[in-house]
Amino acid sequence: MEAKYAKQHSVRYYECDTQARMTLQRLIQIAIDFSGEQVTKMNKSIGRDIMGEEQLAWIIIQYEFEITRLPRAEETITIETEVGEYTKLFAKRFFTIYDENENVLLTIETLFSTFNVEKRKLGRIPSELFKNIDGLEQVKRIKRQPAPERVAEVVGAKDYYVRYFDIDSNQHVNNSHYIEWSLDVLGSKFLQHHDITYANIKFEKEVHYGDTVLSEYSLIEEDEVIKTAHRITNGEVVNSELNYHFVKREN
Amino acid sequence: MEAKYAKQHSVRYYECDTQARMTLQRLIQIAIDFSGEQVTKMNKSIGRDIMGEEQLAWIIIQYEFEITRLPRAEETITIETEVGEYTKLFAKRFFTIYDENENVLLTIETLFSTFNVEKRKLGRIPSELFKNIDGLEQVKRIKRQPAPERVAEVVGAKDYYVRYFDIDSNQHVNNSHYIEWSLDVLGSKFLQHHDITYANIKFEKEVHYGDTVLSEYSLIEEDEVIKTAHRITNGEVVNSELNYHFVKREN
Repeated sequence: MEAKYAKQHSVRYYECDTQARMTLQRLIQIAIDFSGEQVTKMNKSIGRDIMGEEQLAWIIIQYEFEITRLPRAEETITIETEVGEYTKLFAKRFFTIYDENENVLLTIETLFSTFNVEKRKLGRIPSELFKNIDGLEQVKRIKRQPAPERVAEVVGAKDYYVRYFDIDSNQHVNNSHYIEWSLDVLGSKFLQHHDITYANIKFEKEVHYGDTVLSEYSLIEEDEVIKTAHRITNGEVVNSELNYHFVKREN
Repeated sequence: MEAKYAKQHSVRYYECDTQARMTLQRLIQIAIDFSGEQVTKMNKSIGRDIMGEEQLAWIIIQYEFEITRLPRAEETITIETEVGEYTKLFAKRFFTIYDENENVLLTIETLFSTFNVEKRKLGRIPSELFKNIDGLEQVKRIKRQPAPERVAEVVGAKDYYVRYFDIDSNQHVNNSHYIEWSLDVLGSKFLQHHDITYANIKFEKEVHYGDTVLSEYSLIEEDEVIKTAHRITNGEVVNSELNYHFVKREN
C-alpha cells in the first residue's frame, strides 16, 4: 500500500474562530483521527492488530505546523497524511492540507512514539506494522524537530481547570486542549488581529481530570513576526512547551 | 420540497466522552449546522436570501432532548431534521437521530425565533421562506415546551471563564458551551456512571467573551431517575436554565 492517504473535509462554522479561520485544535483532532483510519488499513494489510496484541498505544510527542493560510468556514479541504521514517522508538507522520485548487494551506510534521499500556513504559515500534508500506524502512536515526524555545520573561498567565469533557474516549485529555490553553491567554484582541504562521508544540507530561494548569507566555517581535513562547505547568511539572509565530492580519 | 431532510454522520472518538458516548455539545453543533444546510436549500427554492435581505438572524430559544441512547464512537448515525410549525415570532424544528438499524436513538425539539441585527430587537419570521415546504402553514399559536424546573437547594457550583475559542464564526458564544458548563459541575464520577435520558435547555441572555459565569445545580431523586436543575448566571443576570434526567449506567 501507498505511504500516502487522503480524504476531503468540509469545514464547518463551529470548527472556526471569530474570523472564520479553522482552529488548530479542530484541525489536529481531525488529522489525528484520520491517521487512525490509515493505521486500520495497515492492520488489515498485515492481517493483525499488532499494536493491540503487544499492548501498545501511540503517543504524540511533537507537532510542528507551517501555515500559509488556515482553512476557512465552508471551504472544502483535502487532508493528506503520509507515514514517514521510523526507528525502534520513534515514528514520523506528515500531514498536508490543500485547498480546492490544490494549493498547500499548511503542513504538520508529527513525531510519535509508543507506550506499553501493560508495563507502563515506552514501547518498541513493531516494524511489521509498516511492512506493506511502499518504500518505507526502519532507520537508525530520525531527524528530530527543534525543541520549542523556552519562555523568557512572562508577560501573561492564566489558570485553566481540566474539565470532564476535555477527556475523550481514549481516556486522556485530548491534546488539542493544550493548544487552546496556550492560545486563549493571548486574548481576543491579539488573536483576532494576527494570523498564525508557525507552531511548534511539544508534550512532556500528561495532565489529568481535575488538575488546574497554569498557562504562561513570553513574546518577542522580530521584524514583521511576533514570536511567542508558552508553557503549560501543573505545580513543578511542565506539561507542554509551545511556540507560535504570528503576523499582523490583513483586514 | 419536503419538510424532512437527512444525512449520515460517522461519530468520531473526539466527539465522545470517556464512556465513548457522543456528547450533547457535539450533537447539537452538528444538528444545528445541518439545519443550516436545509435553510440554504429553502433559500434556493424561493430564489432569495430573505433572512439576509431583512437583516434577520435565527436565534435558539430552547432545546428539549428525549434520549434512548447516545450515539457511540465509530457508529454511523442518520440525522433527520424537519421544519415544524411557525407563527409570526416562533418556529419549531425537530431532529431525530437514528442508528444503522433505523432505531431512534434520540429526538430534539427546538424552538427558534429571529433577531433583527440592524434594529437590535426580535424580528418577524418571513413566511415566504417556508412557502415551498410541503404541507406547512403559518399558525396562530405554537405548542410551547415546558419551562425548565428552577434550581432549588444548590448542591454544587463552579465558575467558568468564557474563552476566545468559545466564540464561533457567528460571533457568538456557541450555545453548546452552556451544556458543557452545566454538566461539568456534576463531576467525572457522576457523569461516568449515569446516562442522560432527558434534557431541557432554555437560553435567556447571551454571555460574552471575558465574562465569568457561575454554574449551579440542585438535584432530586425520584425512583430510578435523578433529576438535576441548573442555572448559568453572570452576576444578577440569568443566562440559561437547564434540566437533565439521569439513570444509573449499566456497565
